[in-house]
Amino acid sequence: MSSIFARIIRGEIPCHKVGEDDRYLAFLDINPVRMGHTLVIPKVEVDKFFDLPADVLAGIMPFAQGVARRMAAVLPCDRIGLSVIGLEVPHAHVHLIPIDSIYDMDFSRPKVKMSNEAFAALAERIRQA
Amino acid sequence: MSSIFARIIRGEIPCHKVGEDDRYLAFLDINPVRMGHTLVIPKVEVDKFFDLPADVLAGIMPFAQGVARRMAAVLPCDRIGLSVIGLEVPHAHVHLIPIDSIYDMDFSRPKVKMSNEAFAALAERIRQA
Repeated sequence: MSSIFARIIRGEIPCHKVGEDDRYLAFLDINPVRMGHTLVIPKVEVDKFFDLPADVLAGIMPFAQGVARRMAAVLPCDRIGLSVIGLEVPHAHVHLIPIDSIYDMDFSRPKVKMSNEAFAALAERIRQA
Repeated sequence: MSSIFARIIRGEIPCHKVGEDDRYLAFLDINPVRMGHTLVIPKVEVDKFFDLPADVLAGIMPFAQGVARRMAAVLPCDRIGLSVIGLEVPHAHVHLIPIDSIYDMDFSRPKVKMSNEAFAALAERIRQA
């Protein structure tokens, strides 16, 4: 039984992609705690982040750095915050969130509502940044 | 003007160390959101996580993995969560937090109170795990 992220990697479910290489994929979270909230996932299917092979762990933050820099170029914010929780989808994932205060990383906040077109346009801006 | 973390790295301020190598240091947060809450910092002094050199970013998660595994061996929890916020101390740092629910990563919760002796004993247990 594949998780939704494995199905996104295989292209069975669409996503608003903002970055990809042979080992990692980055796409917009469709329930963003703040506009631009992005998920970075390894293509290898492992539930817990710290159970990832060390070489996948070693590569994920340099990959995320490229994504975070493009996000910061497009989305006004103090910096890009990062969170790994992972209790909902059993495929390791890193949340990248533009933040100005700690409250921007509060997952209990009401999610930002955006149309599919707005997500697509934002993903395009981040990809091109 | 050095941050408190630079002074901890230089040994000018004590900490409850749980791990160290030539490039990284891990120690207990003395205002833990949950018992065992640990900070992992690079020894290089950079404010924003994603401004760290790519090789430092590449090494930090494999280092944190070793710390997280020792934490999980000592602290009952579903997994070790991870957060990078960084709005208070201008030295990049990763929070490692034992979690069973998303509320365990809520930084607005009252902090866990522990004596200096309890912190020291916990750090020793994690180091030895």
